[in-house]
Amino acid sequence: MAEPEVFDATAETVGYTFGGRAPIASIPSATRVRVRTWDCFAGKVRSVDDLPSRVCEFPYLNPVTGPFYVDGARPGDTLAVHLLSLTPSSTVGFSSTFPHFGALTGTHTTAMLHPALEERVWQYTIDPHNSTVRYTARNSEYAVDLPLAPMLGTVGVAPAAGEVRASIACGAHGGNLDTPLLQAGTTLYLPVNVDGALLALGDGHARQGDGELCGVAVEVPMDVTLAVEVIPGVTTAWPRLETDTHLMSIGVARPLEDAYRAAHADLVGVVSDLTGLDVLDAYQLLSQAGRAHVGNVVDTDYTIAAAIGKDLLDGAQPYRGAHQRLRDLAAGVH
Amino acid sequence: MAEPEVFDATAETVGYTFGGRAPIASIPSATRVRVRTWDCFAGKVRSVDDLPSRVCEFPYLNPVTGPFYVDGARPGDTLAVHLLSLTPSSTVGFSSTFPHFGALTGTHTTAMLHPALEERVWQYTIDPHNSTVRYTARNSEYAVDLPLAPMLGTVGVAPAAGEVRASIACGAHGGNLDTPLLQAGTTLYLPVNVDGALLALGDGHARQGDGELCGVAVEVPMDVTLAVEVIPGVTTAWPRLETDTHLMSIGVARPLEDAYRAAHADLVGVVSDLTGLDVLDAYQLLSQAGRAHVGNVVDTDYTIAAAIGKDLLDGAQPYRGAHQRLRDLAAGVH
Amino acid sequence: MAEPEVFDATAETVGYTFGGRAPIASIPSATRVRVRTWDCFAGKVRSVDDLPSRVCEFPYLNPVTGPFYVDGARPGDTLAVHLLSLTPSSTVGFSSTFPHFGALTGTHTTAMLHPALEERVWQYTIDPHNSTVRYTARNSEYAVDLPLAPMLGTVGVAPAAGEVRASIACGAHGGNLDTPLLQAGTTLYLPVNVDGALLALGDGHARQGDGELCGVAVEVPMDVTLAVEVIPGVTTAWPRLETDTHLMSIGVARPLEDAYRAAHADLVGVVSDLTGLDVLDAYQLLSQAGRAHVGNVVDTDYTIAAAIGKDLLDGAQPYRGAHQRLRDLAAGVH
Amino acid sequence: MAEPEVFDATAETVGYTFGGRAPIASIPSATRVRVRTWDCFAGKVRSVDDLPSRVCEFPYLNPVTGPFYVDGARPGDTLAVHLLSLTPSSTVGFSSTFPHFGALTGTHTTAMLHPALEERVWQYTIDPHNSTVRYTARNSEYAVDLPLAPMLGTVGVAPAAGEVRASIACGAHGGNLDTPLLQAGTTLYLPVNVDGALLALGDGHARQGDGELCGVAVEVPMDVTLAVEVIPGVTTAWPRLETDTHLMSIGVARPLEDAYRAAHADLVGVVSDLTGLDVLDAYQLLSQAGRAHVGNVVDTDYTIAAAIGKDLLDGAQPYRGAHQRLRDLAAGVH
Repeated sequence: MAEPEVFDATAETVGYTFGGRAPIASIPSATRVRVRTWDCFAGKVRSVDDLPSRVCEFPYLNPVTGPFYVDGARPGDTLAVHLLSLTPSSTVGFSSTFPHFGALTGTHTTAMLHPALEERVWQYTIDPHNSTVRYTARNSEYAVDLPLAPMLGTVGVAPAAGEVRASIACGAHGGNLDTPLLQAGTTLYLPVNVDGALLALGDGHARQGDGELCGVAVEVPMDVTLAVEVIPGVTTAWPRLETDTHLMSIGVARPLEDAYRAAHADLVGVVSDLTGLDVLDAYQLLSQAGRAHVGNVVDTDYTIAAAIGKDLLDGAQPYRGAHQRLRDLAAGVH
Repeated sequence: MAEPEVFDATAETVGYTFGGRAPIASIPSATRVRVRTWDCFAGKVRSVDDLPSRVCEFPYLNPVTGPFYVDGARPGDTLAVHLLSLTPSSTVGFSSTFPHFGALTGTHTTAMLHPALEERVWQYTIDPHNSTVRYTARNSEYAVDLPLAPMLGTVGVAPAAGEVRASIACGAHGGNLDTPLLQAGTTLYLPVNVDGALLALGDGHARQGDGELCGVAVEVPMDVTLAVEVIPGVTTAWPRLETDTHLMSIGVARPLEDAYRAAHADLVGVVSDLTGLDVLDAYQLLSQAGRAHVGNVVDTDYTIAAAIGKDLLDGAQPYRGAHQRLRDLAAGVH
Repeated sequence: MAEPEVFDATAETVGYTFGGRAPIASIPSATRVRVRTWDCFAGKVRSVDDLPSRVCEFPYLNPVTGPFYVDGARPGDTLAVHLLSLTPSSTVGFSSTFPHFGALTGTHTTAMLHPALEERVWQYTIDPHNSTVRYTARNSEYAVDLPLAPMLGTVGVAPAAGEVRASIACGAHGGNLDTPLLQAGTTLYLPVNVDGALLALGDGHARQGDGELCGVAVEVPMDVTLAVEVIPGVTTAWPRLETDTHLMSIGVARPLEDAYRAAHADLVGVVSDLTGLDVLDAYQLLSQAGRAHVGNVVDTDYTIAAAIGKDLLDGAQPYRGAHQRLRDLAAGVH
Repeated sequence: MAEPEVFDATAETVGYTFGGRAPIASIPSATRVRVRTWDCFAGKVRSVDDLPSRVCEFPYLNPVTGPFYVDGARPGDTLAVHLLSLTPSSTVGFSSTFPHFGALTGTHTTAMLHPALEERVWQYTIDPHNSTVRYTARNSEYAVDLPLAPMLGTVGVAPAAGEVRASIACGAHGGNLDTPLLQAGTTLYLPVNVDGALLALGDGHARQGDGELCGVAVEVPMDVTLAVEVIPGVTTAWPRLETDTHLMSIGVARPLEDAYRAAHADLVGVVSDLTGLDVLDAYQLLSQAGRAHVGNVVDTDYTIAAAIGKDLLDGAQPYRGAHQRLRDLAAGVH
């Protein structure tokens, strides 16, 4: 295979919104490209003394590289984005608490009268050979290695209805979904709302717990190899994921039960369409065989992915087999 | 007083977003202007046989007239928008159920497997002389007059962080707040996020129940007389309202308790600032004297207004007396 | 009229649950009785130095006087409880913050990592002649009179399904509804779940803001004059209220939008039954004419009352006219 | 080892509440006992034609066997309940939709105006040799084997504060938690609120999807072998689980984010206590290493379990090693 084209992350190629910006390049379907991304702090947190609320300036958080104009993508199509590889491009990652942000603190909307929790930064050491991420406590001697599990927090396209959304927001257009499921080997399906879809991505995490409890994962710059495919004339109501073994719908909503409901109602429809089960039979199958993966419980909207094993789909191929084609492409089988 | 300048609602002067559009005109502070608005259906529902889902096309719902560039408004300022008068410009209004929209139906996010409720349109007769709005049942002989209580569902400015939001969405920038409190005699305070603020308004209601239960009020085109004032260097975290008797903060969030929390936490801060009470003393005062007004429980985010009587503010003047100045202007006292 | 029988509040006549206790007395229908109640602190807070978390002991909070065995009440009936008068039996009332309780603090379930807010007690002076309640700040010189508006926080019966609920909980059986609507002149309708209904009441408030923001109203011992009526063979799904002008359903649920939904869905059904409007026509009428009153946003479940004017009910009499009969009784018209 | 004592499920040994009933037997610590349980329908659904709403009668749903008086258990202690084995005692299991119950339908509190979804029953065939549960569609030819994964939906003790809760409710006392994590090999920790704890259990599931989407799992009668241990003087705020690899806290609340918050705040405290990490360091560790398991999104309160690997606990032993002792007992190592 030829080397993929490389798009660097620079002040010119990153932005802070989905929609509202001109494409930085075009990318064709079925072709590997390599995209570099900054971390969510735009690289400004470099030690545990760099408090994000001091070194970062709202709204310049969560930079995304792009947008990319996907050749041939038209409103009403679906864009399949397959992640071939995710490689942290630094051996240190950072996390932090952030004033009035996170699941266990009063926030802008879950508003409380408490003063903000202490703002504290943690530095992680990434060992790519052993595939570990080292957690080191700040106020005691404790340290421990966690598995390296690279993922992207933020992948999205221009929203519908002429909207422009901050890169820290999430919705039907994707965006800051913050689900640990968005790893290498996974295909993300997003609706195309404008010509060229205008794909952008960023917010690499060396790993993340379910729900992104404190609101900040192990944030790292990331080298991403991806390939896209346009599925013409097929709409996608909510972001969906496909791996070699599972098909998933992501609900993006508040309260969290609505994220659960939206994800599962969407997946009931998908399973019904793929298998010929009627809606209640599909509902029942998911009731016993479905898995629910909590993405984030901290962002503008919460995310839950409803999942079903593809072995339960009676041989049906979601999105006309796009995932397998993109997998083959990744493996050089073409 | 001179006659106010009039801005008509036309295909050229209405739009469907806050932000993302060039101003249609400039308006100075402290000057009455008259703005015509279309109803939320853009005038396409003309009888009970015009089902909105057939005659309207997403996203062309909830047109707002504007945006207006407010002279002198700069990011970090507050824009005071005073409504001098609201006059329905039609003697008929329409409401409807709409598939998968409303508080007592499964929706996009509160997703259910039920088929949509029946889509049905109701036509109301407005009697401006008797100040009534006549409800007429569709499936029985019942009809009854309700008080005419004109209000605007949607008033907003360009959002922060370069976002563009659909006119059916609401947030800190205002937008589709859908609170029955936005009546003549009321001043709405909004944050200025971009030069000129870019004010737009629409979605007139002849009246509305608390929460806008089915998602659609008595929708009418409206003639609005308003005047604005820029309060320089004063920020506003959430939309606030002032009448001759009350000061209010509007929380915009899901779930509904977060709208309640955000509204009240904001008002605790305002009361504390205005009276010198410490935060807990202000919290206590609101606990016994505060009123909570449910705006909408149907839109992209829900709204609740927390209110306190101005007689409890120890003589303090919110926003340096802007409301009174705009009231005096309305009365010709200047 | 004869003097009503008086039931005092003593260690023997108060309790801390609905259900699970033997009746202290029987009361007949259509007869005035007078019931004395303790305040929610069981009288243990006597100055601003008596912190509730020190002087009170869980679960001995929110004592209710009773239960009363209502003659003739059988499961499947409805109990109408009419409040003839509410008179605070003290000229001082107390409120407080309480650790991890209230709408603007982390709580047991809206769990946060913040330390508790300061626990602080406020003493109010009640002036029955001027009908005022005097708020006095703790940390500044500010004081102000608020209108006296006596209400009961807690009125309930034995729950269904053999359950016993703490008197601080609320549900379909009533209990700690904490709505400012439960004032003199109001009739509360509750389902009868066990023979005799087992009515109990307490938690008097000299007044309360909407939502009971900090979780504690102006707590006072109260002298209550009430009369009950059994409406045989009529079930009641949610607590309902009737005044001379309005009919209301109270939803008791979390999140708060579910309290809104439950209240309104119940009232849609009631309005449909009373007027003959079909369900969608009743939904539409409430959408334009309904009022939503926030009760509490702090207890085990939140409460919202949906209200409609009785003038919109086409002359129908809820509950076979029970409210008017009890009103007449109150006025001595019988 | 001696054969464990066996307690059968009969009309005399099952009940429908936690609390409010006299113990059926005493059980000592550290001794295996065998408890038989009925399915949630009390065995009344025997074919796909037995609609639960017809053959079952509220509140006689979700029978639990017990309560058992645990020797030595005193208020303020913790009860460890270890499940040694779970064996369905039937080769058929049933699931169903149920009117106005489930995550994707309007319910009592998420009240909607839609008619109930169709009530439909599914019959599953359990193959204990191949460890499968066979799903068979009702309206098409599709059938598929799912892994057998026996669990208990309902395990609990008498609640605090003198409350009696229906066996279909859940809370800090356990009860109808409906989490698929409650499998053989797991220890459940519950607070002791009354002398003897009054343990009861039931609601066996051959398997269940995350969230118990339609509200009903693959319901089966179950043979349960368990052993208990009392941990004196140790309180437990929320139900906790321990397996050989993980420690978990279960949050029980609505909305679902509050279940997430309560579970994680509890686990932050536990991790901090066990490891000596300060609260923020423990918060950070869970933010990157925590897992969130959705239990139910259908019952009176929702459940989420927050989990952490025991390898991250720095060698600390939760509850003084109770889980390991009970495991050893199960293995006959004593």
